[in-house]
Amino acid sequence: MDVAQNQAPAAVAPVRLSRDELAALAVRALAAQGMPEPDAIDAAEILVLADLFGVSTHGVDRIPVYSERLRIGGIKALPSVAVERSAPSLLRVDGDNGIGPLIGRRALRATMELARETGLAAAFVRGSNHFGPIISYAHIAAAAGFATIIATNATTTIAPSGGKEAKLGNNPLGLGVPNPGGDPVILDMAMSVVARAKVRLAADKGEAIPPSWATDRDGRPTTDPTAALHGFLQPIGGYKGYGLALMVDLFAGLMSGAAYLNHVSSWADAPEAPQNLGHIFILFDTNRLGRPDWLGPLVEDFTAILHATPPADPARPVLVPGETEYRAFHQRSRDGIELPAALHAKLTALAGKRN
Amino acid sequence: MDVAQNQAPAAVAPVRLSRDELAALAVRALAAQGMPEPDAIDAAEILVLADLFGVSTHGVDRIPVYSERLRIGGIKALPSVAVERSAPSLLRVDGDNGIGPLIGRRALRATMELARETGLAAAFVRGSNHFGPIISYAHIAAAAGFATIIATNATTTIAPSGGKEAKLGNNPLGLGVPNPGGDPVILDMAMSVVARAKVRLAADKGEAIPPSWATDRDGRPTTDPTAALHGFLQPIGGYKGYGLALMVDLFAGLMSGAAYLNHVSSWADAPEAPQNLGHIFILFDTNRLGRPDWLGPLVEDFTAILHATPPADPARPVLVPGETEYRAFHQRSRDGIELPAALHAKLTALAGKRN
Repeated sequence: MDVAQNQAPAAVAPVRLSRDELAALAVRALAAQGMPEPDAIDAAEILVLADLFGVSTHGVDRIPVYSERLRIGGIKALPSVAVERSAPSLLRVDGDNGIGPLIGRRALRATMELARETGLAAAFVRGSNHFGPIISYAHIAAAAGFATIIATNATTTIAPSGGKEAKLGNNPLGLGVPNPGGDPVILDMAMSVVARAKVRLAADKGEAIPPSWATDRDGRPTTDPTAALHGFLQPIGGYKGYGLALMVDLFAGLMSGAAYLNHVSSWADAPEAPQNLGHIFILFDTNRLGRPDWLGPLVEDFTAILHATPPADPARPVLVPGETEYRAFHQRSRDGIELPAALHAKLTALAGKRN
Repeated sequence: MDVAQNQAPAAVAPVRLSRDELAALAVRALAAQGMPEPDAIDAAEILVLADLFGVSTHGVDRIPVYSERLRIGGIKALPSVAVERSAPSLLRVDGDNGIGPLIGRRALRATMELARETGLAAAFVRGSNHFGPIISYAHIAAAAGFATIIATNATTTIAPSGGKEAKLGNNPLGLGVPNPGGDPVILDMAMSVVARAKVRLAADKGEAIPPSWATDRDGRPTTDPTAALHGFLQPIGGYKGYGLALMVDLFAGLMSGAAYLNHVSSWADAPEAPQNLGHIFILFDTNRLGRPDWLGPLVEDFTAILHATPPADPARPVLVPGETEYRAFHQRSRDGIELPAALHAKLTALAGKRN
């Protein structure tokens, strides 16, 4: 190898930023698009947490897309996010088509305040957009002692069981329980057996896929990844996953007064149109469920029992939900987050200046 | 065929009872075991609904088992079911080891009353036993305008993903949304791909099973139903279903102050021991989420969109969750419920007299 070849990769090496540096960059990039700084700080908190947890597809990587939609008026830089208390323990939030992580962060804050008062509170959110990963919200809530059930609807990618037309989104559902002595237990799952990206990867490699992953466009299970890309992702457990995706849409979409099923428009196909996505946040104040400090020892016992399960493969011990993500979180909080050079350059350009 | 052969089947023909007749028989059978009549009425309501919905494994069929456990002191005929309001929207219920459907019905009633006041309420229930099918509770709540999230833990049958020891129950989770103009949409699902009975059926027939159904006792997926019967049921979507079963146990078991994981004892292996199962009931008053009569037209639109999905097989149209069960419910409410003759005889004997 000559020197030029050695230097070429160095020129595109990822840029390592501390958590605070990444947050500052994200805030500047969002504020430069016209968002008030407090709003940019709220949204950036959710996105940077996504990067810390290793869910980088839902992190600051989204800011260029948000910026483009802000530019063409698909979402609003200055929404009037309205929180209405419709019953002692219920909030209805109208996001007014702002960016999703801002609306989500606002709804979460309002729900935390109300749940502190009533022990249990929920927010039904409409007029929103893609709000980032559920684990970011569950993490913030768990740190304050709240158990969570959080869900959102999404652009349609899944056909109903036995059907051959996409009617449902991958509608993520998350459940979280705080662990005062350690990391919370947080499940954040979408309803398809695998993400579309895994089907695409198989197609690129020319490999067959298991028949449980997807159907062709006629709704028949297929092992051909190319046929699958023209068809539909299959939900977990067949009609069970279909049922879960549908119930999430009823709770997060329909009951929130948001769009649902194929009334949801696609940000990819129609970036200029409001999506009117819906979310639901349900928060339980675990301090109201027992004597002080009751929860920690029980969650420790619970996770210890699971970790002690003899593994089928000794090299792969049993994990609990969120464990992989919290490993990334601790490592990246300590060592910083690596951004691809191209993304770092984009964000820096959006922020309007180099740091 | 001679006359004797014709008569033999007639002697064991099922007995058809109206809904009211079946309820009366169930109440008498339970009251004869020492339960106060109001308690017997509450428990019988849940069990008879199970039979109406076609979930007969969770219906009056259970009364002989309950009776045996009452007889040997495994459960109490005269429990002191205690409801404590631990926060404005939170209830903690101690079932005091009464029969499950009684405790569940009491917890549901208390949660409905509180949710009417606060818009959203939850009950965390401990000291309980198998409480019947979730659809019975979701149906009662939906008829009064409540959307529901209901779950329970259960005797362990599922190994954690990658593990080879049963640590989790099949932990059913149910979600329900009322439909003021028609049948509610109710999902009531356990976390395994299939019930154990389906594996047993394949073993009896000598047929292979799909590798997604179960593992052998070493935690490896198997197509041999006999090996599967010595192993573990697989949860839907692998680690996703494992995660859901685990989160249900955290919410319904651990957070309720009930037993969890392998702390739950088996009613089959140790019928004389209290199980200390836990349930959670979360109820939303849908009247507090919009203008009067807002919900019906939206749920009608929602189900109509799904029903209009082109089916992969024209003979099998797309359904929504609960549709099959409500078909049975309407048919049996009209035509009555057929009880196997042996079960009818047992219940009549338990009731202490023939009707």
